[in-house]
Amino acid sequence: MSSPSLMQRLLRGAAPVALLCAITAPALADEGMWTMDNLPLKQLKERYGFTPSAEWISRVTQSSARLALGCSASFVSADGLVMTNHHCANECLAELSPKGQNWFQDGFKAASQGAEPKCPAMELDRLDHIEDVTDKMSQALAGKQGAAYIQAEKAADADLQKGCVAGDPTHWRCDVVTLYHGGKTALYRYKRYQDVRLVFAPDQNIAFFGGDPDNFNYPRYDLDLTVLRAYENGKPAKTTYFPFDPNGPKAGQLVFTSGNPGSTSRETPAAELALMRDFELPSGIGYLSTLDGVLWEYGRQGKQQTQDAQDDLFGIENSLKVYTGWQQFLADPKMIETKRSAEKGLLDWINADPQRKAQYGDPWEKLAPVLDKERQLYLRYVMIEGGRSARGFQGELFGYARTLVRGAAERAKPDTQRLSAFHDANLPAIEAALGSTAPVHKNLDETLLAFSLTKLRQVLGADDKTVHDVLGHQSPEQLAHAAVQGTKLADPAARMALWKGGEAAIAASTDPMIVLARQVEPEARSLRDQWDNEVMAPERQISETIAKARFARDGSNIYPDATFTQRLSFGKVEGWNENGTDVPPFTTFAGLYARATGADPFKLSKAWLDAKPHLDMNTKLDFVTTNDIIGGNSGSPVIDADGHAVGLIFDGNIHSIGGDFAYDGTNNRAVAVDTTAIIAALRSVYHDEALADELVRGHL
Amino acid sequence: MSSPSLMQRLLRGAAPVALLCAITAPALADEGMWTMDNLPLKQLKERYGFTPSAEWISRVTQSSARLALGCSASFVSADGLVMTNHHCANECLAELSPKGQNWFQDGFKAASQGAEPKCPAMELDRLDHIEDVTDKMSQALAGKQGAAYIQAEKAADADLQKGCVAGDPTHWRCDVVTLYHGGKTALYRYKRYQDVRLVFAPDQNIAFFGGDPDNFNYPRYDLDLTVLRAYENGKPAKTTYFPFDPNGPKAGQLVFTSGNPGSTSRETPAAELALMRDFELPSGIGYLSTLDGVLWEYGRQGKQQTQDAQDDLFGIENSLKVYTGWQQFLADPKMIETKRSAEKGLLDWINADPQRKAQYGDPWEKLAPVLDKERQLYLRYVMIEGGRSARGFQGELFGYARTLVRGAAERAKPDTQRLSAFHDANLPAIEAALGSTAPVHKNLDETLLAFSLTKLRQVLGADDKTVHDVLGHQSPEQLAHAAVQGTKLADPAARMALWKGGEAAIAASTDPMIVLARQVEPEARSLRDQWDNEVMAPERQISETIAKARFARDGSNIYPDATFTQRLSFGKVEGWNENGTDVPPFTTFAGLYARATGADPFKLSKAWLDAKPHLDMNTKLDFVTTNDIIGGNSGSPVIDADGHAVGLIFDGNIHSIGGDFAYDGTNNRAVAVDTTAIIAALRSVYHDEALADELVRGHL
Repeated sequence: MSSPSLMQRLLRGAAPVALLCAITAPALADEGMWTMDNLPLKQLKERYGFTPSAEWISRVTQSSARLALGCSASFVSADGLVMTNHHCANECLAELSPKGQNWFQDGFKAASQGAEPKCPAMELDRLDHIEDVTDKMSQALAGKQGAAYIQAEKAADADLQKGCVAGDPTHWRCDVVTLYHGGKTALYRYKRYQDVRLVFAPDQNIAFFGGDPDNFNYPRYDLDLTVLRAYENGKPAKTTYFPFDPNGPKAGQLVFTSGNPGSTSRETPAAELALMRDFELPSGIGYLSTLDGVLWEYGRQGKQQTQDAQDDLFGIENSLKVYTGWQQFLADPKMIETKRSAEKGLLDWINADPQRKAQYGDPWEKLAPVLDKERQLYLRYVMIEGGRSARGFQGELFGYARTLVRGAAERAKPDTQRLSAFHDANLPAIEAALGSTAPVHKNLDETLLAFSLTKLRQVLGADDKTVHDVLGHQSPEQLAHAAVQGTKLADPAARMALWKGGEAAIAASTDPMIVLARQVEPEARSLRDQWDNEVMAPERQISETIAKARFARDGSNIYPDATFTQRLSFGKVEGWNENGTDVPPFTTFAGLYARATGADPFKLSKAWLDAKPHLDMNTKLDFVTTNDIIGGNSGSPVIDADGHAVGLIFDGNIHSIGGDFAYDGTNNRAVAVDTTAIIAALRSVYHDEALADELVRGHL
Repeated sequence: MSSPSLMQRLLRGAAPVALLCAITAPALADEGMWTMDNLPLKQLKERYGFTPSAEWISRVTQSSARLALGCSASFVSADGLVMTNHHCANECLAELSPKGQNWFQDGFKAASQGAEPKCPAMELDRLDHIEDVTDKMSQALAGKQGAAYIQAEKAADADLQKGCVAGDPTHWRCDVVTLYHGGKTALYRYKRYQDVRLVFAPDQNIAFFGGDPDNFNYPRYDLDLTVLRAYENGKPAKTTYFPFDPNGPKAGQLVFTSGNPGSTSRETPAAELALMRDFELPSGIGYLSTLDGVLWEYGRQGKQQTQDAQDDLFGIENSLKVYTGWQQFLADPKMIETKRSAEKGLLDWINADPQRKAQYGDPWEKLAPVLDKERQLYLRYVMIEGGRSARGFQGELFGYARTLVRGAAERAKPDTQRLSAFHDANLPAIEAALGSTAPVHKNLDETLLAFSLTKLRQVLGADDKTVHDVLGHQSPEQLAHAAVQGTKLADPAARMALWKGGEAAIAASTDPMIVLARQVEPEARSLRDQWDNEVMAPERQISETIAKARFARDGSNIYPDATFTQRLSFGKVEGWNENGTDVPPFTTFAGLYARATGADPFKLSKAWLDAKPHLDMNTKLDFVTTNDIIGGNSGSPVIDADGHAVGLIFDGNIHSIGGDFAYDGTNNRAVAVDTTAIIAALRSVYHDEALADELVRGHL
């Protein structure tokens, strides 16, 4: 499974506001993505006889991390060694590959600690401190509505972040996190590592064995691992860490996952889910499916093309499984009916008391016109603006151009009035991305831009004003060709010059990609304003009202919906029953070699074929657990009650996709690599004894 | 809009059983696709003061025709001249283009009648006679269920066809047509023209001006025309015809369309529509969208690739608009609720009388387990078998292989026991297709097969038995490459040799495409049997029960759902109001030139640019009418009360897509080319005075 950014950037632009409180009070079974300050002590004691100490909780927190672009990770040695998934380091591997080599495909092994190369534009964040700012935020927002609410929230957000980083945004990152849909607001401070280096990656054949056909399926046979190292001042960072257990877990054993689930929608109102099911998901699935076909055929044109397209292709096929899983889950009429019935129960409770009625009103009635507005704006919003990536303007180069155009205008404003992406605290990350020396694949970029402009015209129609203004008398192909081949933005120096030149440089630029981004900017901004003020803000206010009513009725022994922040899930190593057949929890090397065919994506590299006689075929490779996880948990460590690393989360089974809306412990399973396999592969396949030793020893 | 075969072959394999009786009794407004023996005389008289004479009806019938592959057409001169759409002759134009030329793109003009080239594999059918065989069929099916029902139906069908063609299947084609979902069965005999030649086609720029962005939209500016000629014994056929009115229709004027609407689902039970909306349409849209992306990117690789892919691409993008329109139409909860409420009304009427209760039972209750079965079988059925074209085995060469493998086995059986596609009466068409000299584009075929095998594995999973058997240790790319590059089936002589060799030749063949088709055949046939016997047959029996109950309650002053047979629709030339803006009924040459940009698909050919000074800019180009049409009506003539041709149907507006499920006269519009524009273009753009003269004169 992949990061929330990949999964959601194309569906609704920004991630859906997944700030709603959880459905069950109290949570049943192994359900829940718990914040570190509100662990399910009662459930843990009752179900597993385990009570974590304060030291245990602190060490787990300090040893966990996340990749800023959307994965989880953990420290696994005192010298800053970091364990995450291969698919979380795709970009680093691709970008670092020297000409004629393909580290993403063939793997990488640093000759020594001193020879570890720096991943361009990779940031690792470790949670350092949480401050409850609920009261501060409530005061700032009191009595505000619509645009004023958004503005006040931005200002408060920027103030809090600014104070938190204390003038040192290079070393600290601070995020304002709204939990329980406004029930609680917290300021998360992270220790920021922007010097992250590559230590080891296996070849892609074993990292993603089974490829797209096996993705979200089980049994699995993957070693989805990348090892990185955090550096400070040019030296390996000294870190708290999870001792690495080279023997993996046992069936039935209590295990935890510590990671950053991206988003869930377990308390989203039924009417919002229906809009998603009937309109937004079909639109997103259609768009992504077409893009999937474009990239698949692009990749068939040669080895270079295959390599250039594979990262996008992986993300898209992953997202498509998720969207399709959601669509099928939501198509079950029981799903929406259950939600509607729960909502009616809460409304009846509100209406039963005049004071409650005055306080909460009927939030679902207020939601209806907002959803009408959402539906009306949706297509133009996702095609022209759409958060990180507009469906109508794909490609890295346009992305750079939009960042430059928008960034120039935003930086001219006081920090508190900017779009949140351009707060002072976020500028170092933007500058790192603009300055990245990773090559731009111009032909792929031209293909993506031509495709997306074609879709822009198809979806909005040739008579749409923006379509007309953008294309003029050119075809999408002509415009894409002129903009991509004519722009200088593939050169990081050119990008940095425009960034530093600010508004004057942008206004004076004749670079065709800048011209294009500049031309679309007024309409894109107008759509963002309408979307934020007329859709997102009222939806959040309505959901907050619902959440507060539910709190008042049910109390607070619940977990918040996922927000790509640190959470702990618990569960056990256990298979499930699939249509009458028991699926065992573990797979082994024997199963891997039996499944290998010699053809992609079931092909083994020479290293694995050569190593076969030297491996114990009974070695456990992957396993499943009942832990409640979701996209964003990729790269999370699986740890035991002693706080030792026993596995590495890299996927969920097919039933885990519905987990976005509800957790079903009977068949929702997390999928992990066994630490036993990691050590065996390092020693017997990749002959990286130094790394295996560091893992077992816990330091360099 | 395109033919029903294009629209439906990938959704559910064969066209949905669209044999249900119509929703309204009596029909309102300009609704209805009426059979020639049951015209809406009352509505015509009341609404338009028009009563057709027997001679008028007979002449309209005899002057109308259909292309066997899925379009409508009409005779427009006494010497066999045929008018249909450019998009209905795509294959002929592509196949006839000499090396280095592209008649599909650039157009074609026969130098003289004697120089008209024959379209490969094109068949034109003109309705000759209708016999009511309701009683014969009822007797043959009495008391039969499931497989026995299917078998008896096949046998009766074959007997009727055989008797009807009277030993001369080259000149006659006979189809058993089930109307009103079993309320009536008719035997349609057609005069068969298999020598159809190309007379004239404009360039693709004007035929499909606006391309995919404008498809299903209006205002439109297209000259979507191809002129063909039917031949008999090597000479132009002598035919009844519609006199060609070179002045087109007037706003508000009564007009008729005479054509072959492919299928509608206006009486499909709500539960079937819900399954389509929630499961089958999302699956079909996802598949076709990906294929759309593959072909789009394939076409970007060069001029030849663009040309090779364009026909499939056009069909897929057209189907996607239809499927997406259906999905959106059905997502409106009112749509399904209205149907459920009507069904409940009918059930209440049944239950109100013990005799009716005994006779009809509760057909909707019986439907539920059949739909469960449909859902369970669906994905394997459409991927592995799927009627004309399996989603997992795309490409012309596999299609030939399956026809050869299946045809050999079927022809060894008595005619009555064969699959209907292989009845003696259908063999000439199969042989014509197998013997076609149209080139196979091997690289495109390999791409399609590799893509579809990839989808096969993705949709059914790598552990599916058929996937495992088919791929073995090969990747989809490897298997597709070996099968396409190794097969001899691109050569018509090789195909005909295998066809003539029958079962022994097929069993002995080592041709890799035959080997592949042979390997999949047992499972494909088994799926077809299950689908036909356990899904289609019970669904048809249930729908027949519902239709009979409705007949008993409402009488028979209704039209049957479309069945790709001759129908007459009536209406008037009239625009509509789109969100407060009036859309006028006519467009003109002035609008065309104003919309032209110089870039595809809004580019005009040199001929049109050169002709501009010589054209009257006020000449009407396209117009819309309230006539109730659907896919399959493409190429239908628009005729006036005098039976003169005044236009040529080529599309419907976006609201017409929902017409599959219900007709809404407020905004459902048919889109046609004005005959005025046809004459002006022939004279002033293409300088084909001979053809213009033949049209105006009515003979050579």
